[in-house]
Amino acid sequence: MQKKILLRDDEIPRQWYNVVPDIPGGLKPPLDPETSQPMGPDKLSAIFPMGLLEQEMSDQRYIDIPDEVREIYTIWRATPLVRATNLEKALGTRARIYFKNESVSPVGSHKTNSAVPQAYFNKREGVKRLTTETGAGQWGCALSFATSKFDIECKVYMVRVSYDQKPYRKSMMHTYGAEIVPSPSTETQVGRRILAEYPDTPGSLGIAISEALEDAFARDDTKYALGSVLNHTILHQSIIGLEAKKQMELAGDYPDIIIGCCGGGSNFAGIATPYIPDYLEGKKIRFIGVEPASCPSLTMGKLAYDFGDVAKTTPLLYMYTLGHDFIPPGIHAGGLRYHGMSPIVSALVRENIIEPMSVHQLECFEAGVLFARTEGIIPAPETCHAIRAAIIEATRDLNEPKTILFNFSGHGLIDMASYDKFYAGELQNFDYPEEALARSLANLPKI
Amino acid sequence: MQKKILLRDDEIPRQWYNVVPDIPGGLKPPLDPETSQPMGPDKLSAIFPMGLLEQEMSDQRYIDIPDEVREIYTIWRATPLVRATNLEKALGTRARIYFKNESVSPVGSHKTNSAVPQAYFNKREGVKRLTTETGAGQWGCALSFATSKFDIECKVYMVRVSYDQKPYRKSMMHTYGAEIVPSPSTETQVGRRILAEYPDTPGSLGIAISEALEDAFARDDTKYALGSVLNHTILHQSIIGLEAKKQMELAGDYPDIIIGCCGGGSNFAGIATPYIPDYLEGKKIRFIGVEPASCPSLTMGKLAYDFGDVAKTTPLLYMYTLGHDFIPPGIHAGGLRYHGMSPIVSALVRENIIEPMSVHQLECFEAGVLFARTEGIIPAPETCHAIRAAIIEATRDLNEPKTILFNFSGHGLIDMASYDKFYAGELQNFDYPEEALARSLANLPKI
Repeated sequence: MQKKILLRDDEIPRQWYNVVPDIPGGLKPPLDPETSQPMGPDKLSAIFPMGLLEQEMSDQRYIDIPDEVREIYTIWRATPLVRATNLEKALGTRARIYFKNESVSPVGSHKTNSAVPQAYFNKREGVKRLTTETGAGQWGCALSFATSKFDIECKVYMVRVSYDQKPYRKSMMHTYGAEIVPSPSTETQVGRRILAEYPDTPGSLGIAISEALEDAFARDDTKYALGSVLNHTILHQSIIGLEAKKQMELAGDYPDIIIGCCGGGSNFAGIATPYIPDYLEGKKIRFIGVEPASCPSLTMGKLAYDFGDVAKTTPLLYMYTLGHDFIPPGIHAGGLRYHGMSPIVSALVRENIIEPMSVHQLECFEAGVLFARTEGIIPAPETCHAIRAAIIEATRDLNEPKTILFNFSGHGLIDMASYDKFYAGELQNFDYPEEALARSLANLPKI
Repeated sequence: MQKKILLRDDEIPRQWYNVVPDIPGGLKPPLDPETSQPMGPDKLSAIFPMGLLEQEMSDQRYIDIPDEVREIYTIWRATPLVRATNLEKALGTRARIYFKNESVSPVGSHKTNSAVPQAYFNKREGVKRLTTETGAGQWGCALSFATSKFDIECKVYMVRVSYDQKPYRKSMMHTYGAEIVPSPSTETQVGRRILAEYPDTPGSLGIAISEALEDAFARDDTKYALGSVLNHTILHQSIIGLEAKKQMELAGDYPDIIIGCCGGGSNFAGIATPYIPDYLEGKKIRFIGVEPASCPSLTMGKLAYDFGDVAKTTPLLYMYTLGHDFIPPGIHAGGLRYHGMSPIVSALVRENIIEPMSVHQLECFEAGVLFARTEGIIPAPETCHAIRAAIIEATRDLNEPKTILFNFSGHGLIDMASYDKFYAGELQNFDYPEEALARSLANLPKI
């Protein structure tokens, strides 16, 4: 038995898979935040290049990966599919556990899968500068890397709490040549307004998105890039699942359960959606999206039109949301601290194809330590959520020889401070934030 | 053309290569520090298990890799051989540059290649606890990982300056279950003595080795593990070069120049020595060992018997040395701050088979940033030395289509603070430490 199933460079898929035409009941369109009418590509083109908007709106199942993107993908792709034999042994389970190791990318996570094509399509249309936000820092690093490959300037609005806690993420972005400011910053109107009202705010992804958007709107040579949530990010991440399908076939196995952690939804959708056609043809697969109990958009949120940001400047998306002004507790999986969920994942939950699951912070770190001691790699706090769910499923009935596939979305080497807090007993589980949630859900736009 | 040349798990070599019988002129034996007589396995067995001592003394060319070790190797091995096409383009060179990417190991460097067999052979002989030293933290992490796989306790004496500057390395070792103290510590006689004399000392590998040895001598259930320098560590690291040979063959290419950075010498010897038999049969290969100008054991040291540690407790090794009480300047490549060099590398330099090269700190960080922006991966400061040398060789004559192979020994994600200092202009080149060196060389043991 091979522990790792690898693919050669020339076996990297040549097309991404777009799940949108396969979603039963389809997707509702994004709405213009001013008119509440469906928003066409002409208006969105102030934010995104046409190449990405075509993907965002596409109803084609397969979309070509440009050669220039594929060439950069070969720096780290195809990523290994690994059988977690040592974890299986430690659990005493007959389940076969596989993980797709996306941590081997230059920045340590799956985020580069979308950053590279986003930089490419912006470059192709003459964009000179990109702005973005970052929470845990993974996306900011990925976009910094991608823009360095295409000689585009990059400015990152980094959620202040991460900016202060993760100096190494800043250093990585500097290494790739990007500019970074803590958000809220004094460089945008929305940043200044929030700082005036809440000078000690830890910031949030919703605020950072507002700032990056304001910056992009203000300059003709600048567009904006988003690391998750939107259809085109999930399209790009489908390469994870497309490779995994080939590799599972080479392993002579097929997943009964597919698991990923859910912040905006793109890493989970990336591994899961390429299996949706099989599911629709009758294959029995359980898709489990795992979110933190303290930021439970799928398990406790509402399916509704909502803004993606605090300043209400993004298009309205139809998604599971906790409300655009919900500020989640400061859990250490910063990449999962987002109020919304991608419309694609939301629609698949609505259709009962995806099962949401929520888990607490401490059990996730415990799972992460067990994983590190068995499989070697120290997982990112976000990834610990997927591992925790895989362990739950693998130990439900130790004698059932089911096959579990999860996405190992990133390593934790830049997040060791959160492990230190865990070892020191300084982390806690957060209760379901009932009151805050009631308040923010009351502020949903009336549509 | 494939950018990455991969090997399947079942193509991982089944034997290590031992260069010792192939060294023209052979090696001089280690000497007993008390009697200055050749030291046999019986006395060394207080420090090391017989399984490792047999390897240390072996004159067999090939030595089997135990199945248990090979199984753990599959967690990250075989490592990719990568063609640095983007770096070549940026340099405008016709040289073909390949690197062996050892940074994909769980701890981010080649050190696990020796840590795993060392833990295995100790476990096989009933050892319950291992002590070791670590400079930059790479070896400490590697041994912590390896001992966690074999359920052995691990105590790491970490050079104080690294202990203070690299909190994430500590956290990684904690994750694998090891105990860590800053060295010099109050837990050993030698540590207390040095602290009394130099309370503000930044520590050194030489001091940390003394402490780890004292600890191991004091307990029957404990042995000591060294991450580089000794023959058995180089034997284990030969897996790098053995894989690289297979992969270069698959690439249809053959190296004219092989490069690695040199601290104790094991990563460089690991990639280089498997090519020595070809060299001895007449193949033209240049082997370049790269060291920091501020700690220049190969270029400025003396070939002599010397101690491996400050307290003069190790066996005397015949090697290029700066003197056992030489304390190198605080450069940011902590893994290269060692006064000695492995006897194997030393003998190959003596025979003019290996060319030593020394480079300065700032040019190395510049090379590292160029590498990150082209090939994506941020290199460890140690690895930057190898990259710098590869760039020097690739740009000597831009039109010469030579083939360069270097060892990418580790990534820099846990060393970003040193990049920050580089960006802030706070790093400097150190001059050749003439006076300090004259003093320490005068203290070489008289043999």
